[in-house]
Amino acid sequence: MQRGEEIYSGKAKSVFKSDRDDALILHFRNDTSAFDGERIEQLDRKGMVNNKFNAFIMQHLEANGVSTHFIELLSDTESLVRRLDMIPVECVVRNVASGSICKRLGIEDGMTLSPPTFEFFLKNDALHDPMVNESHIATFGWADPEAVAYMQKTTLQVNDILSKLFADSGMLLVDFKLEFGKQGDQLFLGDEFSPDGCRIWDIETREKLDKDRFRKGLGGVVEAYEAVASRLGLAL
Amino acid sequence: MQRGEEIYSGKAKSVFKSDRDDALILHFRNDTSAFDGERIEQLDRKGMVNNKFNAFIMQHLEANGVSTHFIELLSDTESLVRRLDMIPVECVVRNVASGSICKRLGIEDGMTLSPPTFEFFLKNDALHDPMVNESHIATFGWADPEAVAYMQKTTLQVNDILSKLFADSGMLLVDFKLEFGKQGDQLFLGDEFSPDGCRIWDIETREKLDKDRFRKGLGGVVEAYEAVASRLGLAL
Ligand SMILES: Nc1ncnc2c1ncn2[C@@H]1O[C@H](COP(=O)(O)OP(=O)(O)O)[C@@H](O)[C@H]1O
Ligand SMILES: Nc1ncnc2c1ncn2[C@@H]1O[C@H](COP(=O)(O)OP(=O)(O)O)[C@@H](O)[C@H]1O
Ligand SMILES: [Mg+2]
Ligand SMILES: [Mg+2]
Repeated sequence: MQRGEEIYSGKAKSVFKSDRDDALILHFRNDTSAFDGERIEQLDRKGMVNNKFNAFIMQHLEANGVSTHFIELLSDTESLVRRLDMIPVECVVRNVASGSICKRLGIEDGMTLSPPTFEFFLKNDALHDPMVNESHIATFGWADPEAVAYMQKTTLQVNDILSKLFADSGMLLVDFKLEFGKQGDQLFLGDEFSPDGCRIWDIETREKLDKDRFRKGLGGVVEAYEAVASRLGLAL
Repeated sequence: MQRGEEIYSGKAKSVFKSDRDDALILHFRNDTSAFDGERIEQLDRKGMVNNKFNAFIMQHLEANGVSTHFIELLSDTESLVRRLDMIPVECVVRNVASGSICKRLGIEDGMTLSPPTFEFFLKNDALHDPMVNESHIATFGWADPEAVAYMQKTTLQVNDILSKLFADSGMLLVDFKLEFGKQGDQLFLGDEFSPDGCRIWDIETREKLDKDRFRKGLGGVVEAYEAVASRLGLAL
């Protein structure tokens, strides 16, 4: 499979045309960004780790009944995915409070959220990804009501599947964000699931094993991602 | 009806016990606050205008099938209302973009929102009334799902009723906030509807006739409230 024309270059991945009209190549780069792209660094091996991590998770989700865009790994840092019209909102589930929600709602980092919260955010770096709700999505036409219901239901389903997967290896899935898109009339989970877009803590020590290591300058970022992969039984 | 013990003093109203266990006295003060209570001023006649304005609107809503807490006017600045356990969220509908939503979503002041947006905000000055959604309300137990659905449905119903009322007198109901509460198992519209908690523009000139005159230092605040009342046919 040959890379065609680059059609988009984001903060962490680049998107290329492929041989197939209905599929794209996602290239996972080493770029690591925080604070809506204000800080960007290169982290060795991160592109490879996230590409393989994402492949592993997408296949696990597919095996558990979630329709994903993932088709196959093409190389260490590239995957073939269904070409989607992306919906410009991020779907966030939180099992434990950490990050922006703590300041926003005045709650303590580490507080268990039961039932888990579900939030939509508009994908817009210039506006700092503001929280939005179903009515904003309807008013501004970002997605139709069926897609809204599907994203909410599927994100909570993904939470059930992955919370169990991580817990079985002694890890706590604190929170995560997903993006969805459409091919024709059908909705698929798109983008990526990797430690770049979620929080994972050791269940006992609550050690951070995700991109918060980068945001907070804790070091050992990719090493932590590799430790998560290894605990999940994924050979990189 | 004698005022009993004061049980709460808010930014613009004070709440007193009444002769009846199931009813309270709302006293509308002249205090006018903005920026989550950071700026407070006394505006002559405002308590009287808002008390009578609110009575007029609540009676109009009741006549159109909305259950409200309003029982009767007691004096120029006092009303008797059903005693409610208030739900600590504000329900906001916007027909036209103005205020916080413009910055939050990067849209222009004056843009028509169709369908109107519906938003929940947590009533919490220290946190600057953050936007919340149904899942936060469930997780933190601020209201049960039936109350959430009721508040959303009723706020949109109020929008239909009042948009028409204002339009019939040449005014545009830009946006407004409502608060609800429970007496036993029954939900009621509580608090107040007045130019303090909504935006009203002249339909032709788009002149502001609401608390934005205070926030923006335009002057003629209470005079504008009185003009709205007069256009609605309400003698103060
Ligand atoms: N299957 C897909 N089809 C089309 N676009 C996709 C697909 N999966 C992800 N994308 C988009 O590709 C981009 C991935 O690059 P990324 O670095 O994450 O970008 P961003 O900075 O916009 O988040 C994102 O904009 C994402 O929405
Ligand atoms: N029917 C009611 N029963 C009990 N409390 C009410 C009722 N209607 C309004 N309230 C509450 O009374 C207070 C009114 O005072 P206000 O100055 O608006 O306060 P705040 O600064 O809290 O907004 C509010 O806290 C409101 O929630
Ligand atoms: Mg991205
Ligand atoms: Mg109030």
